[in-house]
Amino acid sequence: MSLKLYIAGPEVFLANAREIMDQKTALCRKYGFEAICPGDLDIPPAATKRGFGLAISKVDEDMMDSADGVIANLTPFRGIAADVGTCFELGYMCAQGKLVAAYTNVAADHYQRTVDYYGGRTVDAADGQTRGPDGLSIEDFDMFDNLMLHGGVERRGGHIAIHAAAPDALYTDLTAFEQCLKALAGREPAMPRDEGKRPEELDASNDD
Amino acid sequence: MSLKLYIAGPEVFLANAREIMDQKTALCRKYGFEAICPGDLDIPPAATKRGFGLAISKVDEDMMDSADGVIANLTPFRGIAADVGTCFELGYMCAQGKLVAAYTNVAADHYQRTVDYYGGRTVDAADGQTRGPDGLSIEDFDMFDNLMLHGGVERRGGHIAIHAAAPDALYTDLTAFEQCLKALAGREPAMPRDEGKRPEELDASNDD
Repeated sequence: MSLKLYIAGPEVFLANAREIMDQKTALCRKYGFEAICPGDLDIPPAATKRGFGLAISKVDEDMMDSADGVIANLTPFRGIAADVGTCFELGYMCAQGKLVAAYTNVAADHYQRTVDYYGGRTVDAADGQTRGPDGLSIEDFDMFDNLMLHGGVERRGGHIAIHAAAPDALYTDLTAFEQCLKALAGREPAMPRDEGKRPEELDASNDD
Repeated sequence: MSLKLYIAGPEVFLANAREIMDQKTALCRKYGFEAICPGDLDIPPAATKRGFGLAISKVDEDMMDSADGVIANLTPFRGIAADVGTCFELGYMCAQGKLVAAYTNVAADHYQRTVDYYGGRTVDAADGQTRGPDGLSIEDFDMFDNLMLHGGVERRGGHIAIHAAAPDALYTDLTAFEQCLKALAGREPAMPRDEGKRPEELDASNDD
């Protein structure tokens, strides 16, 4: 039976979201996985905008609960960091001990993107931290994004794929997505579903 | 015995992070909670920057595992959306069925901030979506941030506090943080620890 992978990423906001999701679904099948995509299900109508948003939140969480793993597209979105909805979803799946993998289509790492955000006007503070002109410290951990994202994946033995996509293909280039699939192929589920194993117990079992 | 609340938010990046954490800890105590703050523990040294970042990731996840709930500071950070590390942490705690609350110190909602990001140059597309000039659709759900964040909290009966802080106090104003504490005071843990209850089962039990 195929393992189910939840497809998380900001490509849901594209005008051709369905096309990209279909491409991702086909790639999943090629590597022996079943894709579960936000948008696969019709969302029941609601009386208010808020109610409709809440209904989508429930459908997406239910999809994650039914999945064995996630591939999270953490390509920077409307700024220098990953899409926040995708980050929520990655944390949600990490807490459940599911299989995790992540990719980004921007090669510059978190530190470099943040320095660029400040136009290079950073300060080496007395406390040993590099800070922006606003006083906020800049994580410098040789990681592709915030340490909770990068660490949550790497500590579980999850694959992280980094690929420099063309600027006009930031959310459609599937090179790194396919690298994640290759890395996950043949993996066993990290835990029996619903057993609630602690994350620290997963480091070893994830490396089968 | 006091319930333990994990204190999530980008104030860890402030030069006076310790001072703000101490203020939050004191407020938690005032409302009968024990605060668990990133940075409370010394992180063991590591041979590489990456290794040190991974060690922090583990300590923070362990802290979340030991907590009964979270108050997430989702004030926009270096852009128009919440800090991605905090979003990961909120998803992590939602998946565990813990008590959740969130706040933001910016009153403009997700839709307005995104329209402003595009300088108002949005397009009403043929598919009924409002899109930026880059073609990416803009969520319009009367929510303070991405629907997974807002929905994850609201669907669990968690409090969402919105407060317009002064621009120079975006990460230090604790008015909304205290509103979350007031709302959580007297709550029971949403589930027995480690039982692995499904999120949909929590909606009711969270409303005690």
